[in-house]
Amino acid sequence: MNTSLDLPSRFRFVLVRTSHPGNIGSAARAMRTMGFSRMELVTPHRFPDREAAALAAGADDVLAGAGVHQELVEGLAGSNLAFGLSARRRGVNLPELTPREAAMQALAAAERGEQVALVFGNERTGLENEELARCHAMVRIPSVDDFSSLNLSQAVQVMAYELRVALLGESMPVAPPVHDEPPADAAQMERFYEHLAQTLDDIDFHKGRAPTTIMLRLRKLFQRAQMDARELRMLHGIFADAQRMARLAGEKK
Amino acid sequence: MNTSLDLPSRFRFVLVRTSHPGNIGSAARAMRTMGFSRMELVTPHRFPDREAAALAAGADDVLAGAGVHQELVEGLAGSNLAFGLSARRRGVNLPELTPREAAMQALAAAERGEQVALVFGNERTGLENEELARCHAMVRIPSVDDFSSLNLSQAVQVMAYELRVALLGESMPVAPPVHDEPPADAAQMERFYEHLAQTLDDIDFHKGRAPTTIMLRLRKLFQRAQMDARELRMLHGIFADAQRMARLAGEKK
Repeated sequence: MNTSLDLPSRFRFVLVRTSHPGNIGSAARAMRTMGFSRMELVTPHRFPDREAAALAAGADDVLAGAGVHQELVEGLAGSNLAFGLSARRRGVNLPELTPREAAMQALAAAERGEQVALVFGNERTGLENEELARCHAMVRIPSVDDFSSLNLSQAVQVMAYELRVALLGESMPVAPPVHDEPPADAAQMERFYEHLAQTLDDIDFHKGRAPTTIMLRLRKLFQRAQMDARELRMLHGIFADAQRMARLAGEKK
Repeated sequence: MNTSLDLPSRFRFVLVRTSHPGNIGSAARAMRTMGFSRMELVTPHRFPDREAAALAAGADDVLAGAGVHQELVEGLAGSNLAFGLSARRRGVNLPELTPREAAMQALAAAERGEQVALVFGNERTGLENEELARCHAMVRIPSVDDFSSLNLSQAVQVMAYELRVALLGESMPVAPPVHDEPPADAAQMERFYEHLAQTLDDIDFHKGRAPTTIMLRLRKLFQRAQMDARELRMLHGIFADAQRMARLAGEKK
C-alpha cells in the first residue's frame, strides 16, 4: 500500500503571498526535478502568468494542477504536518529543524499515510507569525548570517532535494512521534482553535484585552503538540464543560 | 591554520560556457548564501552584464571577484580536486558521486589544504566530455528520470548547500525547540497538572468517571508541547477563569 511510488504525492509545496510569478515557475521546475508535483498557492500576486509558465521550463503539469487559495488554512486542507521555511532566528515558539531533519520527519509521516506540507512565505517578508503558527515546526536552511536570504525557488529546491534524498533512502529515518491516531488535519485544528477562542470569550478570560496575541501563543503551543483526533475530542469536551459553567454563571446574574 | 573560517575560501565554483547572464547572477547569490565567494567563469556568453548584477541580489562581491577565462584549464588553475556536475547516466569513465558524497570528499580535501573546484556546464548541453575529462569525479544530483534538468543556479544551490552542511559538521546538531524562555521544570509542570486536575473537577468534567486515564492523556499531550513558563502562566490564567465560572455557577444552586 504505502509503496515508495505514491509517497511523493503525499507532499505539497505551499507558496504564500508570492510576489513574482517567475518564482512560482522556477519553484514548479525545482519541485518537478525532485519528483513532486503538488503545488498550492495562497494569494499569489499574479497567477496564472506567462512568466511563471516560461520559468517552469516544462513543468506545466505542476502549474496546471496548482490550487489557488485565499487563506493559508485552505492550502493546508487535509494536511497533517506542516513545516514553515523561515530564516528567523528567534521569537517563534516552534521546534527549529534543519532541512535534513525536516525531510526525515516528513518522510516518516508520509510513510504513516499522512499528508505533509512545506510552506514558503513571501520573497521579501517570509512567513508571518500567524502563518508560522499554523505550522508544526520551522525549517531553517543553514545560510550564512551576513547573507541569509535564498531566492524563493532556491529554498524550494533545497527542501525538495532533501525530501528526494530521504525518499531514495540515503539517510535513515529518525523515530517518528508516537501517536495512537494520525495527527489532526488543518481543518480539525481550525475548529479546535475556534472552540478555544469561543471558550475564552465565554469564561471572560480576556477582560477587555485584545485576544490576538493570546490566541497566537496558544496556536503555537498546540501546533507544537501535534495532537491527534482523540486528544482534540478530549479538549473539546473540556471546553464544552467550561462553557456550560460560564452559561450557568451568567444565568445567575 | 586550517580553521573552519578559511575553509570556504578553498572552494571555487566554475561555470563553463554559461548562456544566460541571469544564471551567473543567481549562482553568485546561491553561493554567497552558503558562504562561498570564489567564482570562475569560462567563456561566458555575456559578462559582466546588468542581468547578472540584478539577480545576484547583493552578492556583488562574488561577481566583482569572478575570473573570466578562455579555457576550463585556466579556471581550474591551482585546484587539486575537481568535481563535474552532470545529469548524464553513462559513457563517462569517472566515479559517480551523489552531492553529499562529493561534499564529504571535498571537505576532506579542503581540510588537507587542497583547493577544490565544482564545475558546472552550459545550461542546455551540460559539460562536454573533454571538460568532464578534466574532473576527478562526476556528481549527479538525484533528479527524476523524466524531468532531470535542474536550472543551473539550482544545481549550484544544491551543491553549495551540501558543502555548507558538510562544513558545519557532517551531521548538524539537532536544534532544541526554540523558546523565549527556558522550558518549564518538573516542579512547575506538576503544579500545572494539579491546577488542571482541580479545574476539571470544578467544571465537573469527569461526571463520575475516574480521572486517571484522562489525566494521563493530558500529561502526554502537554509534555510533548514542552511549554515554557510564560505559556504555563497563560494556561494557569485560563484555568483560574474556568474555576471562577464554576464557582459562580455553584453559588447559583
